[in-house]
Amino acid sequence: MIDQLVEKIKKTGAPIVVGLDPMLKYVPEHLKKKAYDEYGETLKGAAEAIWLFNKGIIDNICDLIPAVKPQIAMYEQFGIEGLVVFKKTVDYCKEKGLVVIGDIKRGDIGSTSEAYAIGHIGKVQVGSKLYSGFDEDFITVNPYFGSDGVTPFIKVCKEENKGIFLLVKTSNPSSGEIQDRVIDKRPLYEHVGEMVAKWGEDCMGSSYSNVGAVVGATYPEQGKILRKLMPKTFILVPGYGAQGGKGADLVHFFNEDGLGAIVNSSRGIIAAYQQEQYAKFGAEHFAEASREAVLAMKEDIAGALGR
Amino acid sequence: MIDQLVEKIKKTGAPIVVGLDPMLKYVPEHLKKKAYDEYGETLKGAAEAIWLFNKGIIDNICDLIPAVKPQIAMYEQFGIEGLVVFKKTVDYCKEKGLVVIGDIKRGDIGSTSEAYAIGHIGKVQVGSKLYSGFDEDFITVNPYFGSDGVTPFIKVCKEENKGIFLLVKTSNPSSGEIQDRVIDKRPLYEHVGEMVAKWGEDCMGSSYSNVGAVVGATYPEQGKILRKLMPKTFILVPGYGAQGGKGADLVHFFNEDGLGAIVNSSRGIIAAYQQEQYAKFGAEHFAEASREAVLAMKEDIAGALGR
Repeated sequence: MIDQLVEKIKKTGAPIVVGLDPMLKYVPEHLKKKAYDEYGETLKGAAEAIWLFNKGIIDNICDLIPAVKPQIAMYEQFGIEGLVVFKKTVDYCKEKGLVVIGDIKRGDIGSTSEAYAIGHIGKVQVGSKLYSGFDEDFITVNPYFGSDGVTPFIKVCKEENKGIFLLVKTSNPSSGEIQDRVIDKRPLYEHVGEMVAKWGEDCMGSSYSNVGAVVGATYPEQGKILRKLMPKTFILVPGYGAQGGKGADLVHFFNEDGLGAIVNSSRGIIAAYQQEQYAKFGAEHFAEASREAVLAMKEDIAGALGR
Repeated sequence: MIDQLVEKIKKTGAPIVVGLDPMLKYVPEHLKKKAYDEYGETLKGAAEAIWLFNKGIIDNICDLIPAVKPQIAMYEQFGIEGLVVFKKTVDYCKEKGLVVIGDIKRGDIGSTSEAYAIGHIGKVQVGSKLYSGFDEDFITVNPYFGSDGVTPFIKVCKEENKGIFLLVKTSNPSSGEIQDRVIDKRPLYEHVGEMVAKWGEDCMGSSYSNVGAVVGATYPEQGKILRKLMPKTFILVPGYGAQGGKGADLVHFFNEDGLGAIVNSSRGIIAAYQQEQYAKFGAEHFAEASREAVLAMKEDIAGALGR
């Protein structure tokens, strides 16, 4: 699966993933009205509003980017109806040729991790039949449990040609409270980075591993160190844009082949029309604002990488 | 919410939570046949089989125990249909007067943690209305992100009188790879335990905090230390039974008031009829076997606590 992602990055020239993390406050009024007129102010109505919003954005940006990253929490908050739209979004993005990174941050002990892996990137057996529950291409995974919590995900990656991104150094301000604690003179995230590189050896694509890492754009110095510690690990980089990360911060997340990282922006793209810079589009043309924001991000990153 | 849990523990005399972690291999053939005859060998058929299994067990043990802990991964593996049965199980257990601990191990950065909290223990706003997505009483949370990933859960606990259990030292064999790493001469889990105790001060019930901790029964020595570091923290103890933890290992997880811990068993109870000890019940009477296993667990723990 990592090979497919690399190929699409090369084809689009954009090491960019758009986070489909919809909140109702981002959804234009005319879409909410349409959804509530049909289903009322209900969980189904909210889910429909989010679906209309997602579809508009996907249709307008799918030719520019290699991948999307729907954040399942934003759907899960609307219960079953929200998750139905999460699944619909995953399916629709795949139809449009996008690689789908399910941002689910699951993680548990052995058999439970296996169940998550089966549900999201594998197949479950029911009698004599096999079914995919959610069928993302990649998912994000929390490493706090150690090897026996992580290897069930890697097993399913190998069986199904899928991939994972393990949390190493997250983009939030307090990530250091646990992740930066010093062990044998080095921060925990470096130790986790080494574990990720090692887990990844067992699940290689042609240049990079199907086992990737999450390292926040908000920590460029740490990114530089982790890039060297994990040369074959693809890095998913959240925190660009709304969280404060800039193009220039991203340089060291990439390898000399110009690959090795994919940068996520969520709010900065999907709610672009609410920003002063793109206000001219208006809420009616929210998806065109998102397209402009993708083009600007692409340029910012290409500039930073000196292309 | 912790006060309700403590009250139910006192009333039943059982500091026990039953893990509703159904796998199809635990479900008796006659229930699978019934479900597949109605819905085919489909995700809906599998989910129905699990529902019939859960309902049988809940009906037979609900008078003996204070709480259940459905593990969402085991439902999520069947996609949307599985999650519909997760929600149905949560609702049914609450109708039966049980406290429901959603074992979801979610965790993310600020606004995303808030979305998980809203979906599982809070209410989401849709226009002028408020809805509960899943509506568990407690959920388990992964602390790897630090404070700003955890406090949104605590905020919702306070607003809704709900609770969380944060992972401190998990029951699996490789939990030490990250959790036992030594920082300032003490293992990471002790530092996390102190953070949990501190987060919990802000969200107290009458004797214990609504912010609890997960510490595996498989690590009794660590449990003893953590018990002292977190005197007001209720400890959810997985790993009893099938994972190898025994009654005698549990003593030090409890405080001198005989409270402070609740011990989980999953397979050992729900798949009791598959064990030699309870084979006499046969698959037809699986739920009665579960009842016997709960009574035996209750006795084992009472004996260990010297009651």
